[in-house]
Amino acid sequence: MRYKVTLAYNGKNYAGFQSQKNALAIQDVIESVLEKIFSKKIHIVISSRTDAGVHAKGQVFHFDIDQNLDLGKLKFSLNSLLPKDIHIIDIKKVSDDFHCRYSVKKKTYEYLINTGEYDVFLLGYAYQINYKLDVKKMAKAAKLLKGTHDFFAFNTTPLSEKPNQVRTIYEFKIIEENNLIRIRVTADGFLRNMVRIMVGMLVDIGRGNRQIEEIEELLNNPTRSTRRFNIDPNGLYLMKIFY
Amino acid sequence: MRYKVTLAYNGKNYAGFQSQKNALAIQDVIESVLEKIFSKKIHIVISSRTDAGVHAKGQVFHFDIDQNLDLGKLKFSLNSLLPKDIHIIDIKKVSDDFHCRYSVKKKTYEYLINTGEYDVFLLGYAYQINYKLDVKKMAKAAKLLKGTHDFFAFNTTPLSEKPNQVRTIYEFKIIEENNLIRIRVTADGFLRNMVRIMVGMLVDIGRGNRQIEEIEELLNNPTRSTRRFNIDPNGLYLMKIFY
Repeated sequence: MRYKVTLAYNGKNYAGFQSQKNALAIQDVIESVLEKIFSKKIHIVISSRTDAGVHAKGQVFHFDIDQNLDLGKLKFSLNSLLPKDIHIIDIKKVSDDFHCRYSVKKKTYEYLINTGEYDVFLLGYAYQINYKLDVKKMAKAAKLLKGTHDFFAFNTTPLSEKPNQVRTIYEFKIIEENNLIRIRVTADGFLRNMVRIMVGMLVDIGRGNRQIEEIEELLNNPTRSTRRFNIDPNGLYLMKIFY
Repeated sequence: MRYKVTLAYNGKNYAGFQSQKNALAIQDVIESVLEKIFSKKIHIVISSRTDAGVHAKGQVFHFDIDQNLDLGKLKFSLNSLLPKDIHIIDIKKVSDDFHCRYSVKKKTYEYLINTGEYDVFLLGYAYQINYKLDVKKMAKAAKLLKGTHDFFAFNTTPLSEKPNQVRTIYEFKIIEENNLIRIRVTADGFLRNMVRIMVGMLVDIGRGNRQIEEIEELLNNPTRSTRRFNIDPNGLYLMKIFY
Protein backbone atom coordinates (compact mmCIF):
# COMPACT_ATOMS: atom_id res chain seq x y z
CA MET A 1 0.00 0.00 0.00
CA ARG A 2 1.19 3.49 -0.89
CA TYR A 3 0.88 6.59 1.26
CA LYS A 4 1.25 10.19 0.12
CA VAL A 5 2.50 12.64 2.73
CA THR A 6 2.35 16.44 2.54
CA LEU A 7 4.68 18.37 4.82
CA ALA A 8 6.11 21.77 5.69
CA TYR A 9 9.59 22.56 6.92
CA ASN A 10 11.86 25.40 7.80
CA GLY A 11 14.96 24.61 5.73
CA LYS A 12 17.34 26.80 7.72
CA ASN A 13 19.02 24.00 9.66
CA TYR A 14 19.14 21.33 6.95
CA ALA A 15 21.25 20.48 3.93
CA GLY A 16 18.10 20.29 1.79
CA PHE A 17 15.33 17.72 1.53
CA GLN A 18 17.13 14.84 -0.19
CA SER A 19 19.64 12.63 1.66
CA GLN A 20 23.26 13.26 0.84
CA LYS A 21 26.67 12.41 2.17
CA ASN A 22 28.13 14.15 5.21
CA ALA A 23 25.20 16.46 5.96
CA LEU A 24 21.83 16.18 7.65
CA ALA A 25 18.94 16.31 5.20
CA ILE A 26 15.23 16.42 6.02
CA GLN A 27 14.77 13.01 4.35
CA ASP A 28 17.18 11.47 6.91
CA VAL A 29 15.23 12.92 9.82
CA ILE A 30 11.91 11.63 8.45
CA GLU A 31 13.25 8.16 7.63
CA SER A 32 14.73 7.81 11.09
CA VAL A 33 11.40 8.74 12.68
CA LEU A 34 9.53 6.29 10.41
CA GLU A 35 12.01 3.61 11.43
CA LYS A 36 11.23 4.34 15.09
CA ILE A 37 7.50 4.07 14.45
CA PHE A 38 7.52 0.93 12.29
CA SER A 39 10.64 -0.74 13.75
CA LYS A 40 12.03 -1.25 10.27
CA LYS A 41 13.72 0.81 7.57
CA ILE A 42 11.21 2.74 5.42
CA HIS A 43 12.55 4.41 2.30
CA ILE A 44 10.66 7.52 1.26
CA VAL A 45 10.41 8.69 -2.35
CA ILE A 46 10.64 12.46 -2.47
CA SER A 47 8.83 14.66 -4.94
CA SER A 48 11.01 17.72 -5.15
CA ARG A 49 14.59 18.27 -4.11
CA THR A 50 15.02 21.57 -2.30
CA ASP A 51 18.43 23.11 -1.69
CA ALA A 52 19.96 23.73 1.71
CA GLY A 53 18.10 26.57 3.41
CA VAL A 54 15.04 26.42 1.13
CA HIS A 55 11.67 26.20 2.91
CA ALA A 56 8.56 24.21 2.06
CA LYS A 57 4.90 24.75 2.84
CA GLY A 58 3.69 21.91 0.64
CA GLN A 59 6.43 19.36 -0.04
CA VAL A 60 5.36 15.78 -0.83
CA PHE A 61 6.83 12.30 -0.43
CA HIS A 62 5.40 8.80 -0.69
CA PHE A 63 6.28 5.48 0.90
CA ASP A 64 5.08 1.91 0.64
CA ILE A 65 4.18 -0.37 3.52
CA ASP A 66 2.24 -3.61 3.79
CA GLN A 67 -0.16 -2.26 6.40
CA ASN A 68 -3.45 -0.49 6.57
CA LEU A 69 -2.48 2.54 8.61
CA ASP A 70 -4.51 4.71 10.97
CA LEU A 71 -3.62 7.99 9.26
CA GLY A 72 -4.63 10.29 12.10
CA LYS A 73 -2.56 8.29 14.55
CA LEU A 74 0.43 8.17 12.19
CA LYS A 75 0.29 11.93 11.64
CA PHE A 76 0.22 12.46 15.40
CA SER A 77 3.13 10.05 16.00
CA LEU A 78 5.25 11.58 13.26
CA ASN A 79 4.69 15.13 14.49
CA SER A 80 5.41 14.11 18.07
CA LEU A 81 8.75 12.60 17.07
CA LEU A 82 9.83 15.08 14.39
CA PRO A 83 11.69 18.27 15.37
CA LYS A 84 9.54 21.43 15.55
CA ASP A 85 10.85 22.74 12.22
CA ILE A 86 9.36 19.83 10.24
CA HIS A 87 5.60 19.26 10.28
CA ILE A 88 3.44 16.65 8.60
CA ILE A 89 0.30 18.37 7.29
CA ASP A 90 -1.53 15.48 5.66
CA ILE A 91 -1.27 11.74 4.96
CA LYS A 92 -3.42 10.04 2.33
CA LYS A 93 -3.64 6.48 1.07
CA VAL A 94 -3.10 6.54 -2.70
CA SER A 95 -3.30 3.98 -5.48
CA ASP A 96 -0.19 2.05 -6.51
CA ASP A 97 0.14 3.96 -9.76
CA PHE A 98 0.51 7.26 -7.94
CA HIS A 99 4.14 8.43 -7.87
CA CYS A 100 4.98 11.61 -5.97
CA ARG A 101 7.54 12.60 -8.64
CA TYR A 102 6.19 11.20 -11.92
CA SER A 103 2.55 12.11 -11.30
CA VAL A 104 3.28 15.82 -10.75
CA LYS A 105 1.21 18.17 -12.95
CA LYS A 106 2.68 21.46 -11.75
CA LYS A 107 4.44 23.11 -8.83
CA THR A 108 4.31 26.52 -7.23
CA TYR A 109 7.25 28.29 -5.61
CA GLU A 110 7.29 31.65 -3.89
CA TYR A 111 10.21 33.95 -3.25
CA LEU A 112 10.00 36.62 -0.55
CA ILE A 113 11.96 39.89 -0.65
CA ASN A 114 11.85 42.59 2.00
CA THR A 115 12.66 46.04 0.61
CA GLY A 116 11.64 47.90 3.75
CA GLU A 117 13.51 48.49 7.01
CA TYR A 118 15.29 45.29 8.05
CA ASP A 119 12.86 43.18 10.09
CA VAL A 120 14.26 40.84 12.77
CA PHE A 121 11.16 38.67 12.40
CA LEU A 122 11.93 37.99 8.72
CA LEU A 123 15.48 36.80 9.47
CA GLY A 124 15.83 33.51 7.59
CA TYR A 125 12.40 33.99 6.00
CA ALA A 126 12.96 36.67 3.37
CA TYR A 127 15.80 38.16 1.33
CA GLN A 128 16.68 41.62 2.62
CA ILE A 129 17.32 44.29 0.00
CA ASN A 130 18.46 47.78 0.93
CA TYR A 131 18.18 49.40 -2.48
CA LYS A 132 15.24 50.47 -4.62
CA LEU A 133 13.69 47.92 -6.96
CA ASP A 134 11.70 48.85 -10.05
CA VAL A 135 8.93 46.29 -9.60
CA LYS A 136 7.22 47.24 -12.88
CA LYS A 137 10.35 46.35 -14.82
CA MET A 138 10.61 43.08 -12.89
CA ALA A 139 6.99 42.24 -13.77
CA LYS A 140 7.73 42.90 -17.44
CA ALA A 141 10.67 40.52 -17.36
CA ALA A 142 8.60 37.90 -15.52
CA LYS A 143 6.01 38.14 -18.29
CA LEU A 144 8.72 37.30 -20.83
CA LEU A 145 9.70 34.18 -18.86
CA LYS A 146 6.09 33.00 -18.69
CA GLY A 147 5.12 30.39 -21.27
CA THR A 148 7.00 27.54 -22.91
CA HIS A 149 10.73 28.10 -23.38
CA ASP A 150 14.10 26.40 -23.30
CA PHE A 151 15.29 27.41 -19.82
CA PHE A 152 18.89 26.29 -20.34
CA ALA A 153 20.19 29.77 -19.45
CA PHE A 154 18.16 29.84 -16.24
CA ASN A 155 19.25 26.71 -14.39
CA THR A 156 22.27 24.57 -13.53
CA THR A 157 21.13 21.03 -14.45
CA PRO A 158 23.74 19.58 -16.87
CA LEU A 159 22.41 18.84 -20.37
CA SER A 160 23.87 15.35 -19.97
CA GLU A 161 21.42 14.81 -17.13
CA LYS A 162 18.38 16.53 -18.69
CA PRO A 163 18.84 17.12 -22.42
CA ASN A 164 15.39 18.63 -22.73
CA GLN A 165 15.24 21.83 -20.72
CA VAL A 166 12.01 23.09 -22.19
CA ARG A 167 9.50 23.87 -19.46
CA THR A 168 6.21 25.75 -19.29
CA ILE A 169 5.71 28.51 -16.75
CA TYR A 170 1.98 28.98 -16.21
CA GLU A 171 2.13 31.81 -13.71
CA PHE A 172 4.84 34.35 -12.85
CA LYS A 173 3.42 36.98 -10.56
CA ILE A 174 5.03 39.72 -8.56
CA ILE A 175 2.87 40.83 -5.66
CA GLU A 176 3.77 43.88 -3.59
CA GLU A 177 2.43 44.02 -0.03
CA ASN A 178 3.77 47.17 1.60
CA ASN A 179 7.53 46.60 1.54
CA LEU A 180 7.31 42.86 0.92
CA ILE A 181 7.68 41.56 -2.62
CA ARG A 182 6.25 38.09 -3.15
CA ILE A 183 7.26 36.42 -6.41
CA ARG A 184 5.07 33.46 -7.28
CA VAL A 185 5.94 31.10 -10.11
CA THR A 186 4.05 27.99 -11.21
CA ALA A 187 5.40 25.61 -13.86
CA ASP A 188 5.08 22.04 -15.08
CA GLY A 189 8.57 21.46 -13.72
CA PHE A 190 11.66 23.25 -12.49
CA LEU A 191 15.30 22.57 -13.24
CA ARG A 192 18.07 22.90 -10.66
CA ASN A 193 18.32 26.41 -9.13
CA MET A 194 15.84 27.62 -11.77
CA VAL A 195 13.69 29.74 -9.45
CA ARG A 196 16.65 31.27 -7.63
CA ILE A 197 18.46 32.12 -10.88
CA MET A 198 15.32 33.64 -12.45
CA VAL A 199 14.58 35.68 -9.31
CA GLY A 200 18.23 36.79 -9.20
CA MET A 201 17.88 38.07 -12.78
CA LEU A 202 14.64 39.87 -11.93
CA VAL A 203 16.38 41.55 -8.98
CA ASP A 204 19.24 42.61 -11.28
CA ILE A 205 16.66 44.10 -13.64
CA GLY A 206 14.73 45.80 -10.83
CA ARG A 207 17.96 47.30 -9.59
CA GLY A 208 18.97 48.54 -13.02
CA ASN A 209 21.99 46.22 -13.34
CA ARG A 210 20.54 44.29 -16.26
CA GLN A 211 18.28 45.11 -19.19
CA ILE A 212 14.96 43.37 -19.85
CA GLU A 213 16.15 42.63 -23.39
CA GLU A 214 18.77 40.23 -21.98
CA ILE A 215 15.97 37.94 -20.83
CA GLU A 216 14.58 37.79 -24.34
CA GLU A 217 18.06 37.16 -25.71
CA LEU A 218 18.71 34.34 -23.20
CA LEU A 219 15.41 32.68 -24.06
CA ASN A 220 16.10 32.87 -27.80
CA ASN A 221 19.79 32.02 -27.63
CA PRO A 222 20.25 30.00 -24.43
CA THR A 223 23.74 30.23 -22.91
CA ARG A 224 25.20 29.88 -19.43
CA SER A 225 28.11 32.19 -20.10
CA THR A 226 26.18 35.16 -18.79
CA ARG A 227 26.53 36.58 -15.28
CA ARG A 228 23.99 34.79 -13.06
CA PHE A 229 23.54 34.40 -9.35
CA ASN A 230 21.80 31.98 -7.09
CA ILE A 231 19.82 34.22 -4.77
CA ASP A 232 19.64 33.50 -0.99
CA PRO A 233 17.81 30.18 -0.38
CA ASN A 234 16.11 31.46 2.81
CA GLY A 235 13.69 33.53 0.72
CA LEU A 236 12.45 30.52 -1.27
CA TYR A 237 9.37 28.44 -0.44
CA LEU A 238 8.07 25.35 -2.21
CA MET A 239 4.38 26.18 -1.83
CA LYS A 240 2.42 23.43 -3.52
CA ILE A 241 2.73 20.40 -5.73
CA PHE A 242 -0.28 19.71 -7.95
CA TYR A 243 -1.26 16.19 -9.04
CA MET B 1 22.60 65.64 25.08
CA ARG B 2 19.89 63.02 25.17
CA TYR B 3 19.12 60.51 22.42
CA LYS B 4 15.93 58.45 22.07
CA VAL B 5 16.35 55.10 20.33
CA THR B 6 13.53 52.93 18.93
CA LEU B 7 14.35 49.28 18.31
CA ALA B 8 12.96 45.84 17.48
CA TYR B 9 14.16 42.50 18.74
CA ASN B 10 13.38 38.83 18.68
CA GLY B 11 13.33 37.96 22.37
CA LYS B 12 13.78 34.20 21.90
CA ASN B 13 17.46 34.07 22.83
CA TYR B 14 17.51 36.64 25.62
CA ALA B 15 16.60 36.82 29.29
CA GLY B 16 14.49 39.91 28.61
CA PHE B 17 15.33 43.53 27.85
CA GLN B 18 16.64 44.70 31.23
CA SER B 19 20.06 43.65 32.55
CA GLN B 20 20.02 41.05 35.29
CA LYS B 21 22.38 38.73 37.07
CA ASN B 22 23.60 35.51 35.45
CA ALA B 23 21.77 35.83 32.12
CA LEU B 24 22.24 37.73 28.90
CA ALA B 25 19.74 40.55 28.46
CA ILE B 26 19.26 42.74 25.39
CA GLN B 27 20.36 45.79 27.41
CA ASP B 28 23.77 44.13 27.98
CA VAL B 29 24.22 43.52 24.27
CA ILE B 30 23.34 47.11 23.38
CA GLU B 31 25.53 48.64 26.09
CA SER B 32 28.50 46.54 25.02
CA VAL B 33 28.07 47.69 21.41
CA LEU B 34 27.73 51.34 22.51
CA GLU B 35 30.93 50.93 24.54
CA LYS B 36 32.70 49.66 21.42
CA ILE B 37 31.48 52.63 19.39
CA PHE B 38 32.19 55.37 21.95
CA SER B 39 35.14 53.71 23.72
CA LYS B 40 33.48 54.33 27.08
CA LYS B 41 30.69 52.89 29.17
CA ILE B 42 27.26 54.22 28.15
CA HIS B 43 24.35 53.42 30.42
CA ILE B 44 21.00 53.17 28.66
CA VAL B 45 17.68 53.95 30.36
CA ILE B 46 15.06 51.51 29.19
CA SER B 47 11.41 52.31 28.73
CA SER B 48 9.71 48.96 29.20
CA ARG B 49 10.95 45.76 30.74
CA THR B 50 10.02 42.76 28.65
CA ASP B 51 10.27 39.21 30.00
CA ALA B 52 12.53 36.51 28.62
CA GLY B 53 11.22 35.42 25.22
CA VAL B 54 9.00 38.47 24.68
CA HIS B 55 9.48 40.27 21.35
CA ALA B 56 9.47 43.97 20.53
CA LYS B 57 8.68 45.88 17.38
CA GLY B 58 8.84 49.30 19.02
CA GLN B 59 10.85 49.23 22.26
CA VAL B 60 12.53 52.49 23.36
CA PHE B 61 15.56 53.49 25.39
CA HIS B 62 17.45 56.73 25.89
CA PHE B 63 21.03 57.60 26.72
CA ASP B 64 23.01 60.75 27.38
CA ILE B 65 26.31 61.71 25.79
CA ASP B 66 28.22 64.96 25.52
CA GLN B 67 28.45 64.82 21.73
CA ASN B 68 26.47 65.95 18.74
CA LEU B 69 26.00 62.63 16.96
CA ASP B 70 25.56 61.84 13.28
CA LEU B 71 22.37 59.82 13.76
CA GLY B 72 22.43 58.02 10.40
CA LYS B 73 26.01 56.95 10.97
CA LEU B 74 25.28 55.83 14.55
CA LYS B 75 22.26 53.77 13.41
CA PHE B 76 24.43 52.11 10.77
CA SER B 77 27.25 51.37 13.24
CA LEU B 78 24.89 49.97 15.85
CA ASN B 79 23.13 47.70 13.37
CA SER B 80 26.43 46.51 11.94
CA LEU B 81 27.67 45.50 15.39
CA LEU B 82 24.44 44.20 16.92
CA PRO B 83 23.37 40.58 16.35
CA LYS B 84 20.76 40.03 13.62
CA ASP B 85 17.94 39.54 16.14
CA ILE B 86 18.23 43.11 17.48
CA HIS B 87 17.67 46.05 15.13
CA ILE B 88 17.78 49.80 15.71
CA ILE B 89 14.90 51.39 13.80
CA ASP B 90 15.31 55.03 14.69
CA ILE B 91 17.49 57.44 16.69
CA LYS B 92 16.34 60.96 17.56
CA LYS B 93 17.90 63.79 19.53
CA VAL B 94 15.45 64.77 22.28
CA SER B 95 15.29 67.52 24.88
CA ASP B 96 16.75 66.94 28.35
CA ASP B 97 13.31 66.73 29.94
CA PHE B 98 12.34 63.72 27.81
CA HIS B 99 12.52 60.48 29.76
CA CYS B 100 11.82 57.24 27.95
CA ARG B 101 10.00 55.83 31.00
CA TYR B 102 8.42 58.85 32.72
CA SER B 103 7.26 60.56 29.53
CA VAL B 104 5.25 57.56 28.28
CA LYS B 105 1.61 58.36 27.42
CA LYS B 106 0.52 54.85 26.43
CA LYS B 107 1.81 51.53 25.15
CA THR B 108 0.49 48.91 22.76
CA TYR B 109 1.14 45.18 23.05
CA GLU B 110 -0.01 42.43 20.71
CA TYR B 111 -0.40 38.75 21.42
CA LEU B 112 -0.48 36.23 18.58
CA ILE B 113 -2.29 32.89 18.75
CA ASN B 114 -2.40 30.30 15.98
CA THR B 115 -5.50 28.12 16.14
CA GLY B 116 -4.92 26.51 12.75
CA GLU B 117 -2.64 23.64 11.74
CA TYR B 118 0.74 24.01 13.46
CA ASP B 119 2.94 26.23 11.31
CA VAL B 120 6.72 25.73 11.40
CA PHE B 121 7.16 29.36 10.35
CA LEU B 122 5.35 30.61 13.45
CA LEU B 123 7.59 28.62 15.81
CA GLY B 124 8.68 31.12 18.46
CA TYR B 125 6.39 33.80 16.99
CA ALA B 126 2.90 32.71 18.04
CA TYR B 127 1.23 30.59 20.70
CA GLN B 128 -0.06 27.35 19.20
CA ILE B 129 -3.52 26.21 20.30
CA ASN B 130 -4.98 22.91 19.20
CA TYR B 131 -8.48 23.36 20.58
CA LYS B 132 -11.42 25.54 19.54
CA LEU B 133 -11.66 29.04 20.96
CA ASP B 134 -14.90 30.98 21.24
CA VAL B 135 -13.55 34.31 20.05
CA LYS B 136 -16.85 36.13 20.65
CA LYS B 137 -16.75 35.24 24.32
CA MET B 138 -13.11 36.36 24.48
CA ALA B 139 -14.06 39.72 22.91
CA LYS B 140 -16.81 40.15 25.50
CA ALA B 141 -14.33 39.54 28.32
CA ALA B 142 -11.83 41.93 26.72
CA LYS B 143 -14.53 44.59 26.68
CA LEU B 144 -14.97 44.19 30.43
CA LEU B 145 -11.23 44.70 30.98
CA LYS B 146 -11.24 47.88 28.88
CA GLY B 147 -11.45 51.11 30.85
CA THR B 148 -10.07 52.21 34.23
CA HIS B 149 -9.80 49.43 36.83
CA ASP B 150 -7.70 48.14 39.67
CA PHE B 151 -5.74 45.40 37.86
CA PHE B 152 -4.36 43.78 41.04
CA ALA B 153 -5.83 40.39 40.05
CA PHE B 154 -4.26 40.58 36.60
CA ASN B 155 -0.56 41.09 37.32
CA THR B 156 2.28 40.01 39.60
CA THR B 157 3.81 43.34 40.72
CA PRO B 158 3.87 43.32 44.56
CA LEU B 159 1.67 45.99 46.18
CA SER B 160 4.75 47.00 48.21
CA GLU B 161 6.39 47.99 44.94
CA LYS B 162 3.35 49.60 43.26
CA PRO B 163 0.56 50.27 45.75
CA ASN B 164 -1.62 51.85 43.06
CA GLN B 165 -2.51 49.22 40.47
CA VAL B 166 -5.22 51.22 38.78
CA ARG B 167 -4.56 51.46 35.07
CA THR B 168 -6.61 52.50 32.04
CA ILE B 169 -6.93 50.21 29.05
CA TYR B 170 -7.87 52.31 26.02
CA GLU B 171 -8.09 49.53 23.46
CA PHE B 172 -8.55 45.76 23.83
CA LYS B 173 -9.19 44.28 20.40
CA ILE B 174 -9.32 40.71 19.19
CA ILE B 175 -8.69 40.45 15.48
CA GLU B 176 -9.17 37.17 13.63
CA GLU B 177 -7.21 36.69 10.40
CA ASN B 178 -7.91 33.20 9.08
CA ASN B 179 -6.59 30.98 11.88
CA LEU B 180 -4.50 33.68 13.51
CA ILE B 181 -5.89 35.56 16.49
CA ARG B 182 -4.22 38.89 17.16
CA ILE B 183 -5.02 40.43 20.54
CA ARG B 184 -4.12 44.10 20.73
CA VAL B 185 -4.17 46.01 23.99
CA THR B 186 -3.27 49.65 24.59
CA ALA B 187 -3.06 51.15 28.07
CA ASP B 188 -1.52 54.05 29.97
CA GLY B 189 0.72 51.50 31.66
CA PHE B 190 1.12 47.79 32.29
CA LEU B 191 2.05 45.96 35.48
CA ARG B 192 4.27 42.89 35.56
CA ASN B 193 2.94 39.98 33.45
CA MET B 194 -0.32 41.91 33.02
CA VAL B 195 -0.78 41.25 29.29
CA ARG B 196 0.15 37.57 29.57
CA ILE B 197 -2.15 36.99 32.55
CA MET B 198 -5.07 38.80 30.87
CA VAL B 199 -4.55 36.89 27.62
CA GLY B 200 -4.30 33.63 29.58
CA MET B 201 -7.69 34.39 31.15
CA LEU B 202 -9.20 35.20 27.76
CA VAL B 203 -7.92 31.88 26.42
CA ASP B 204 -9.46 30.09 29.42
CA ILE B 205 -12.76 31.82 28.64
CA GLY B 206 -12.54 31.06 24.92
CA ARG B 207 -11.88 27.44 25.74
CA GLY B 208 -14.80 27.24 28.15
CA ASN B 209 -12.63 26.70 31.26
CA ARG B 210 -13.64 29.98 32.88
CA GLN B 211 -16.78 32.12 32.91
CA ILE B 212 -16.87 35.74 31.75
CA GLU B 213 -18.45 36.66 35.10
CA GLU B 214 -15.15 35.83 36.83
CA ILE B 215 -13.51 38.76 35.07
CA GLU B 216 -16.15 41.11 36.44
CA GLU B 217 -15.72 39.60 39.88
CA LEU B 218 -11.92 39.97 39.75
CA LEU B 219 -12.21 43.61 38.71
CA ASN B 220 -14.69 44.38 41.49
CA ASN B 221 -13.00 42.30 44.19
CA PRO B 222 -9.34 42.05 43.19
CA THR B 223 -7.56 38.95 44.48
CA ARG B 224 -4.59 36.88 43.38
CA SER B 225 -5.87 33.68 44.91
CA THR B 226 -7.56 32.70 41.66
CA ARG B 227 -6.06 30.28 39.12
CA ARG B 228 -4.00 32.33 36.67
CA PHE B 229 -1.35 31.50 34.12
CA ASN B 230 1.39 33.37 32.42
CA ILE B 231 0.87 32.50 28.77
CA ASP B 232 3.87 31.67 26.50
CA PRO B 233 6.11 34.77 26.12
CA ASN B 234 6.95 33.98 22.46
CA GLY B 235 3.46 35.14 21.39
CA LEU B 236 3.88 38.59 22.94
CA TYR B 237 5.07 41.71 21.11
CA LEU B 238 5.67 45.18 22.52
CA MET B 239 4.40 47.07 19.48
CA LYS B 240 4.65 50.77 20.25
CA ILE B 241 5.33 53.25 23.01
CA PHE B 242 3.52 56.57 22.65
CA TYR B 243 4.96 59.83 23.99
